[in-house]
Amino acid sequence: MSKVPEGDWIVGVDIGGTNLNVGVVSFEGGLPLAVRSERTEVVRGAKFIVDRVVRMIKESMSEVMDEKGVGLEAFAGVGIGSPGPLDRKTGTVINTPNLGWRNFPLRDLVQNAIGLPATLDNDANAATYGEWWMGAGRGVDTLVGVTLGTGIGGGIVLNGELYHGANDAAAEIGHMTIDSTGRKCNCGNYGCLEAYASGQAIAARAIEGLDSGIGSILPELAGDVQNISAETVFEAVVQGDPYATEVMHDTAKFLGVGLANVINILNPEVLVISGGVQRAGDHLFVPLRAEIRRRAFQVAEQACRIVPSGLKGMAGIIGAVACFKREQCGEV
Amino acid sequence: MSKVPEGDWIVGVDIGGTNLNVGVVSFEGGLPLAVRSERTEVVRGAKFIVDRVVRMIKESMSEVMDEKGVGLEAFAGVGIGSPGPLDRKTGTVINTPNLGWRNFPLRDLVQNAIGLPATLDNDANAATYGEWWMGAGRGVDTLVGVTLGTGIGGGIVLNGELYHGANDAAAEIGHMTIDSTGRKCNCGNYGCLEAYASGQAIAARAIEGLDSGIGSILPELAGDVQNISAETVFEAVVQGDPYATEVMHDTAKFLGVGLANVINILNPEVLVISGGVQRAGDHLFVPLRAEIRRRAFQVAEQACRIVPSGLKGMAGIIGAVACFKREQCGEV
Repeated sequence: MSKVPEGDWIVGVDIGGTNLNVGVVSFEGGLPLAVRSERTEVVRGAKFIVDRVVRMIKESMSEVMDEKGVGLEAFAGVGIGSPGPLDRKTGTVINTPNLGWRNFPLRDLVQNAIGLPATLDNDANAATYGEWWMGAGRGVDTLVGVTLGTGIGGGIVLNGELYHGANDAAAEIGHMTIDSTGRKCNCGNYGCLEAYASGQAIAARAIEGLDSGIGSILPELAGDVQNISAETVFEAVVQGDPYATEVMHDTAKFLGVGLANVINILNPEVLVISGGVQRAGDHLFVPLRAEIRRRAFQVAEQACRIVPSGLKGMAGIIGAVACFKREQCGEV
Repeated sequence: MSKVPEGDWIVGVDIGGTNLNVGVVSFEGGLPLAVRSERTEVVRGAKFIVDRVVRMIKESMSEVMDEKGVGLEAFAGVGIGSPGPLDRKTGTVINTPNLGWRNFPLRDLVQNAIGLPATLDNDANAATYGEWWMGAGRGVDTLVGVTLGTGIGGGIVLNGELYHGANDAAAEIGHMTIDSTGRKCNCGNYGCLEAYASGQAIAARAIEGLDSGIGSILPELAGDVQNISAETVFEAVVQGDPYATEVMHDTAKFLGVGLANVINILNPEVLVISGGVQRAGDHLFVPLRAEIRRRAFQVAEQACRIVPSGLKGMAGIIGAVACFKREQCGEV
């Protein structure tokens, strides 16, 4: 079954709305080597981004070839994680609001430029598979991953396999309605989890609340009220700002509603939460676990470990490699 | 692998909070023969219910033996579907609010009384598996079932297998929060889908709305306002009552929120809706599909057929038989 001999290397690519991350992982797994991270610069267009990714891949490969004293033949291929929805079979990104791509043949463009086989999967799927392969949910049967970034992504691993659904559109956990008449979401729906607990939403709620004139270090930290980002909120929480802590507490409650739903529907062994929001530590996890306990079925809640990512921002790269291994070698 | 020879018969038992249904299905599948249906009469206690189920099973088996000219040895065993949560391995019902059972060894009580192997699974899981085996979602890869009765149950079939989760607690679709500050649910949570769209909730909302003094045939149909049930509402819809039609339209919208969530998370090929609510026909399905289209991701929504049950109230029995076959013979 295996087409890739042990000892070989696989390149992982993690494409995000803000950053592009590339690294090289050995067939057996581990933290990525020769990691490159650059801005996505969406405004410069699709061709620019693909050229940048291709250059980053070549640089990473060169570095590993130099360091390990191996040649091109030691590389099995490239696994790519990209925002979706996408079609894995054709390697095409169907539509990404954040990147502005439509029916974009990302996989083949990379494959042809590098001259190695490539695979394409959803970025949040890849990150979740990475947590299952090498991270916080290593080797469990059932794992759900939630990535809190600009938006909220999700991934589902069942019986050690990524679950893709009928046409690769499964696990859109961020677009679960938790308040049917609630805040408008970027996807067009109302009351999605993402409209409350994504980085964008955390910043928006923090800014809105300041209108009441409440005291907070947030404006000072950000330089200006309009510059407040989710990262500013996390920083203010760490510094003990009561208002930012309240915003984080609200975030934990919204997230708790969504994750209790996930637990009631999927009854997973592990739920991995990743993204900048991890920085808030117990200010997030303590009220989050309490809200889930209040809402989910007891047997399901007790069976589920809720943990932060174990891969320090590298889950996307590692998971893209795991996806490549699964698709090209039939196993991870 | 198969321990049950073709040509044999399997008994299916569907235990509900209101009715007990028993029937016999052939190994190859089909509609149940010798069907028995009696009231559950929860108030009379667990022993009474088990005795009643055992008698019903024996009656059904006798009828088939007479009709088909076969003996006891033609029966492979008994599949039981029961409200949960439950533990399939030990055959124990952990806790059912509707029946008042706690750590109740239902499977072994039936098995010992009948003298044949028995299996136990969740009632909504069983009904969903029945739809996959013989009903509206025959042979598809990914199917989600939603049963609208006194409560709302759910079942998930992935790659032709019932999905049970880490400890048999998966698919509690009725207890998905769709309005985090909404109506109190029987489960203790607020804003569950079940608190809006179950039979109980439909009746409660219909009665509440009549307080405004709006005209409707509902009180007349039910004899008294307090006697209005979900069935009264469905009947009034069929008779063209505008108020009942509005209640049904609201129900479709609430259900649409929950099912759009299911579609965004599981991306199924088929979503089967069963229960008395089917009676409302297009008054349910037209606004339901519109609400789902408004809320779910387009690629996932377009991939999913939303259909009524194909088994006319027999899904629970047929599915309990399918569960028995899967557990005892390794295949369905």
